[in-house]
Amino acid sequence: MTFLRIAQAQINSVVGDFSANCRKIAAWIEKAKSAQADVVLFPELALSGYPPEDLLLKHGFVEDNHRFLEYIVGCCRGLTALVGFAHGQDGKVYNAAALISDAQLKAVYHKIELPNYGVFDEKRYFQQGSGCLIFDMEGVRFSVTICEDIWIQDSVTCLCASNNDADVVLNISSSPYFVSKLALRRKIVATFAASTNCTVFYNNLVGGQDELVFDGGSMVVNARGELVASAKRFEEDLLLTDIETGEKATPRREWNLSVPVITLQSSYTDRNYSPSGIAAELGRIEEVYQALLLGTRDYVRKNGFKRVVIGLSGGIDSALTAALAVDALGKEQVVAVTMPSQYTSDETFSDAELVARNLDLELIKLPVHDILQAYLSTLKEPLSKGEPGVEGENLQARIRGNLLMALSNRFGWLVLTTGNKSETAVGYCTLYGDMAGGFAVIKDVPKTLVYELAEYANRKAGKEIIPASVIARAPSAELRPDQKDEDSLPPYPVLDPILQAYVEEDKAPNEIIGFDPQLVWDIVRMVDRNEYKRRQAPPGVKITPKAFGKDRRLPITNKYLTCTDGDSGT
Amino acid sequence: MTFLRIAQAQINSVVGDFSANCRKIAAWIEKAKSAQADVVLFPELALSGYPPEDLLLKHGFVEDNHRFLEYIVGCCRGLTALVGFAHGQDGKVYNAAALISDAQLKAVYHKIELPNYGVFDEKRYFQQGSGCLIFDMEGVRFSVTICEDIWIQDSVTCLCASNNDADVVLNISSSPYFVSKLALRRKIVATFAASTNCTVFYNNLVGGQDELVFDGGSMVVNARGELVASAKRFEEDLLLTDIETGEKATPRREWNLSVPVITLQSSYTDRNYSPSGIAAELGRIEEVYQALLLGTRDYVRKNGFKRVVIGLSGGIDSALTAALAVDALGKEQVVAVTMPSQYTSDETFSDAELVARNLDLELIKLPVHDILQAYLSTLKEPLSKGEPGVEGENLQARIRGNLLMALSNRFGWLVLTTGNKSETAVGYCTLYGDMAGGFAVIKDVPKTLVYELAEYANRKAGKEIIPASVIARAPSAELRPDQKDEDSLPPYPVLDPILQAYVEEDKAPNEIIGFDPQLVWDIVRMVDRNEYKRRQAPPGVKITPKAFGKDRRLPITNKYLTCTDGDSGT
Repeated sequence: MTFLRIAQAQINSVVGDFSANCRKIAAWIEKAKSAQADVVLFPELALSGYPPEDLLLKHGFVEDNHRFLEYIVGCCRGLTALVGFAHGQDGKVYNAAALISDAQLKAVYHKIELPNYGVFDEKRYFQQGSGCLIFDMEGVRFSVTICEDIWIQDSVTCLCASNNDADVVLNISSSPYFVSKLALRRKIVATFAASTNCTVFYNNLVGGQDELVFDGGSMVVNARGELVASAKRFEEDLLLTDIETGEKATPRREWNLSVPVITLQSSYTDRNYSPSGIAAELGRIEEVYQALLLGTRDYVRKNGFKRVVIGLSGGIDSALTAALAVDALGKEQVVAVTMPSQYTSDETFSDAELVARNLDLELIKLPVHDILQAYLSTLKEPLSKGEPGVEGENLQARIRGNLLMALSNRFGWLVLTTGNKSETAVGYCTLYGDMAGGFAVIKDVPKTLVYELAEYANRKAGKEIIPASVIARAPSAELRPDQKDEDSLPPYPVLDPILQAYVEEDKAPNEIIGFDPQLVWDIVRMVDRNEYKRRQAPPGVKITPKAFGKDRRLPITNKYLTCTDGDSGT
Repeated sequence: MTFLRIAQAQINSVVGDFSANCRKIAAWIEKAKSAQADVVLFPELALSGYPPEDLLLKHGFVEDNHRFLEYIVGCCRGLTALVGFAHGQDGKVYNAAALISDAQLKAVYHKIELPNYGVFDEKRYFQQGSGCLIFDMEGVRFSVTICEDIWIQDSVTCLCASNNDADVVLNISSSPYFVSKLALRRKIVATFAASTNCTVFYNNLVGGQDELVFDGGSMVVNARGELVASAKRFEEDLLLTDIETGEKATPRREWNLSVPVITLQSSYTDRNYSPSGIAAELGRIEEVYQALLLGTRDYVRKNGFKRVVIGLSGGIDSALTAALAVDALGKEQVVAVTMPSQYTSDETFSDAELVARNLDLELIKLPVHDILQAYLSTLKEPLSKGEPGVEGENLQARIRGNLLMALSNRFGWLVLTTGNKSETAVGYCTLYGDMAGGFAVIKDVPKTLVYELAEYANRKAGKEIIPASVIARAPSAELRPDQKDEDSLPPYPVLDPILQAYVEEDKAPNEIIGFDPQLVWDIVRMVDRNEYKRRQAPPGVKITPKAFGKDRRLPITNKYLTCTDGDSGT
């Protein structure tokens, strides 16, 4: 049986680090050679990392990436590689794929469909491509596409693959994760495979970049929509798939291209055909958990931090954050701090200690009482006027933020914040207080999902990491006597679906049905009124279809649904 | 003499406030009628405010704006109005201009050129228009355009105006301010006027919206490129211009349109021709000063704040911020706080008092010493390890931030931060410390320009507001004994041009010549390394061609020019 072997290099690039990315690509070309592959695919913009954002506007950036590409060209002896890079041509920049074979740059494909929604800003940077790229290897016709190109029905690339009787569509992607995105991608890939009558090789990036996680999960789907092979999720992988080169039953159409046909050869005549493998599927919670691990690990490591520090309150959010940090980085890299106040119950305090003990963490104890007294004494005169408001509660949260930042400044530890999406949405958090830190691990995790992840963390560890008492206790900020979240918010199983409808689905208040309309309006106004807080929040891992951050760009000054009434930074 | 009267309503809309914007548009239609105008122009997206950002994605937003447009249609009896709104059609949204005459919606123009660079994201929201709109009134041919449409050479709208022998181009804009933008606009408008052989009526928005200031300065430029009329800057204005309707010497071409010709009438036969006026020009510093006033005033008022609070250090940044706040809001709306530490010199402290006295401000004095001692005592054990770093300095700054926020929380005052662009660029500022607050007035003002503005503020007041001693003293954060900015930074007249080249012009380090290359690289690395701080900074007024914020979108995780080394949040 004659066949070709396609390798999908699902690698983790670092944005802007041409030198390291280039070395990695060269190393994975060697891996592909060792595996006797004919073709090796790298992700979209693998050379620059994705997304490079405004680095693309910096003088020299695109040229630097050309220089490194030249080096890679030289590495491709005896095989063909498709490498994502930023291509500068005639003063324009394209999101491009370099087709390299036998140490020659054979052709460059320019992405045609540029996403400019959600987290994507590709029309800010790239010119739209205008032509297709098809090449022949041993009688197999390959059509080249980049990410969004296959997400659009009846796209130019779709027609081109059909009109040229292509057998295989190669797609290099950098597709960011959200929960259940893989199922969506499979559907998209299967649809494109069917409409082009091709086998699609979909190769995705893996790794964390600021708020985004690329989850890998590269795949091969045949023209019948069947999954032929798939790569691991959330880690680097080399997926190898052999495809037969036998004659097609029906005669081929003539090439329908305005450019000369590129014909490439296989270097191999004597290999054994290897059947492809399909990676294990992850459950929904496991998938989110892995995304949080990878996003956190890559933010910490790619930004050069050695250790992180977390304030443990005894509540579930900080317990989960600590468990994730330990799983992502190792316990030696995590420091816990507990900062009790007069409102901290004995149960919560002992639970904070218990979490640290379960995770085997160093625990620093810093009571906030004396500092709070010093503030109140200094502020005595000005605060003697007016009605007491939230300033006392916020001072406690801010003292804690300052204590963590003092440790961060002294020891170079990254502060991980512990706020979840539900409280970030309604502003149930303190700017410069519990929001102070460099990375917000569970920022995009609704509170109801926090509970599921906590249970999962315990199951995964095979022992109690997050104590049952923490999971069972009614949520409280513990900034006032006997305070409970439900004093000012509806129960989370009610709040979360309202938030999902309003924040993620952009529904109008009157479209959010099944709840008390007054409650819906109250929640909507809280979300809108707290936009200024979110604007000053640290980045965190996107796991939902719409995260706070560049995914959701709302004005602060906004009177659409809410009449803002002098609500200051609480 | 027969003529038409064109009114340019340079109004200040509020994003999302359909009800108020609609009332305002109706009121200005009445003003235009009182002035016996035939045509009245409103700014781009006048009905929704500009830019509405992701409000455009919310269910119901575009429909709501249609409803309010219907009301405006009813207001236009006896005159023709061109009103900017978001037009939803067949599931797509257009940045549109409604041509309304005699209480009828005659036509809708869809913007063709959608800017998607700098602060603009129009391709995220809008579909590109495909057809031109030309109408006839009393033999005068008017071509309708929106903002960017006239910024593009050889655009569709340009050809359309030429091909139809248009006499007048109407342009409705929402063009944000940066220093010297007006001169650029005049050039663009004059070029378009010349290439279409038309008189261009350029009508701009005015007002502040988050980081943007729209500076008005609406204008009329004839086909010879001469400024015929201009409106005020930084305030609402109704600009009236009469244009003759006499026969053209050469015969007209036939209409060259795929749609029926729209013919409108003047309601007036008996008016006196009024010559147009040209508004006074502003100097460069005066212009920036006005932009800062308007940006601050509108942020405060549109967000419903009654008062602001400012920490006065005795330095020039906080003195200028206070002077601007008083000029923008009135002294009753401004509260000053001085928060001396052991490192505050007597001179600085008395200068803070002097600034407050010069501005006739209430001054609250809150020494930080006791609170700092409480922190150091609480942190004694953990800080006994390792080498002292910046944590002591940062604690002082953060105590001040917390004190201001406590007043903010108690009294609903908005905290204005006082950092300038130079220190924001190199990270010479403390997260959650001096960066804590709701609005950063001089965030985009380089330090060298801060001095010019301080001198101007004194000249404008006709007396010393910012003491000469403040202007003369070497800049210092006063967080350590005898600390001076120049201990760790080059002098600002050296730093600022390097920053301008790197931050605003995107130059590569080796393109920034005339300075010590090592110094350039050091500065570049400081800028890159502090991206995480800027991500958590409050918004502030954009006054340069490239401000920090949505104008400049760089990744935090970025190894392009700098190898990040565990630099934590200082």
